[in-house]
Amino acid sequence: MTSARRVVGVLGGLGPAATLDFFAKVLAATPAVRDQEHLHLILDVDPGVPDRNDAVAGRGPSPAPELAAMARRLEGAGADFLVMVCNAAHAFQDAIEEAVTVPFVSIVDETVQATLASRPEVRCVGVLAAEGALDAGLYQRAFAAHDVVVVVPEGEDRDVFMELMYAIKAGDTGDTVRAGMLRLARLLAEAGAQVLVAGCTEVPLVLSQEVLDAEGLGLPLVNSTDVLVASTVAIGLGERPAHRAG
Amino acid sequence: MTSARRVVGVLGGLGPAATLDFFAKVLAATPAVRDQEHLHLILDVDPGVPDRNDAVAGRGPSPAPELAAMARRLEGAGADFLVMVCNAAHAFQDAIEEAVTVPFVSIVDETVQATLASRPEVRCVGVLAAEGALDAGLYQRAFAAHDVVVVVPEGEDRDVFMELMYAIKAGDTGDTVRAGMLRLARLLAEAGAQVLVAGCTEVPLVLSQEVLDAEGLGLPLVNSTDVLVASTVAIGLGERPAHRAG
Repeated sequence: MTSARRVVGVLGGLGPAATLDFFAKVLAATPAVRDQEHLHLILDVDPGVPDRNDAVAGRGPSPAPELAAMARRLEGAGADFLVMVCNAAHAFQDAIEEAVTVPFVSIVDETVQATLASRPEVRCVGVLAAEGALDAGLYQRAFAAHDVVVVVPEGEDRDVFMELMYAIKAGDTGDTVRAGMLRLARLLAEAGAQVLVAGCTEVPLVLSQEVLDAEGLGLPLVNSTDVLVASTVAIGLGERPAHRAG
Repeated sequence: MTSARRVVGVLGGLGPAATLDFFAKVLAATPAVRDQEHLHLILDVDPGVPDRNDAVAGRGPSPAPELAAMARRLEGAGADFLVMVCNAAHAFQDAIEEAVTVPFVSIVDETVQATLASRPEVRCVGVLAAEGALDAGLYQRAFAAHDVVVVVPEGEDRDVFMELMYAIKAGDTGDTVRAGMLRLARLLAEAGAQVLVAGCTEVPLVLSQEVLDAEGLGLPLVNSTDVLVASTVAIGLGERPAHRAG
């Protein structure tokens, strides 16, 4: 059992609070009563990586060199596979995979597969994601491969999402931010979404299934952080390979 | 300002929950509203390091090789200085310092200096620490250099402390565990302690100044995790060197 375990390398700091949330959830999801039963994780929390959304929009430098360097550092330190706690940064996944030989487990692919595995009948998914992830078409393309339509915040509501996301990054997870995120969720439900995907690791810091239910939204929430946590623990424990068939 | 910043290397997983607590407190203590203003931390969460307390007691293998390897991994990944979120493991500090060239900042030294800096009049300190830290004399020796007497749990109460610590490591931070830790704190106050030092990173997961005050203990608490957090942020931001004079 122990010999099949794999060291987890975490590309983090994008932002730091989302990495903390991920780390806490990995510990909680690992069946362990002694220190020694927990997974070996190496977390590189490098908040100096240039803004992913600005880069995709052409407003700022590419984070690809920093992400590739972080991946190499983690591989050099002994990581057996890599995960990255930021959806938008997956627009630069190619640069990471070219930099290392260990597998990279995509939060986008895992979230799409988890969504469809639990609800194969779904034909329209609402995705709350940052500008960079939307512009790069990360979720749209992945769901389209399964003939699932994606609805996302449009026009001014994309700017609203970014304001909420940066507020959360600044530590504001209060009622106003939560209410703003709920309004966007409601718009996606009205646009036909049968499932809501939190496709940004800051979203779950204010939105949960309990919050959606309390608001009477009646929409199941798939939390990309939770999906990545479950995949990380399963792969780290050696219960499944880093890459699934299909 | 940014150029003076230093990359923090964290020897963690001893245990994982204490590392999570430390990480959360570092983020909260860093003046930052944007991702990019946070510190760059590399956390090696390796729970496979052999039990520190068993090793000091001669009941199990030494963790020194694993701690030295972890330190080398962190230095190799770019850490400019190292901290370790576990008091008892500081019994093996020499092996860490021999393995790397970057400075190692001791939680014990920082805690002793912070205690005496804030309360220079103190002559007797109570230390709640694990068997390994007590047997290695980490706090007794460091305080003795300043002519300060240390009182610690004795006899059966040392076993009680270890039971409480392993319960916390297993995720139990409930009222019974807290009450048990409070009883030990009260014994140290009765033995003459003018200040209580939480010299084990699991202790603050159940004990805080608020808890002590609510119990009417009237004893100031110095939390070694909080001290290491403050030192880590100050050194990481370049506000002070890794090692202080004196």
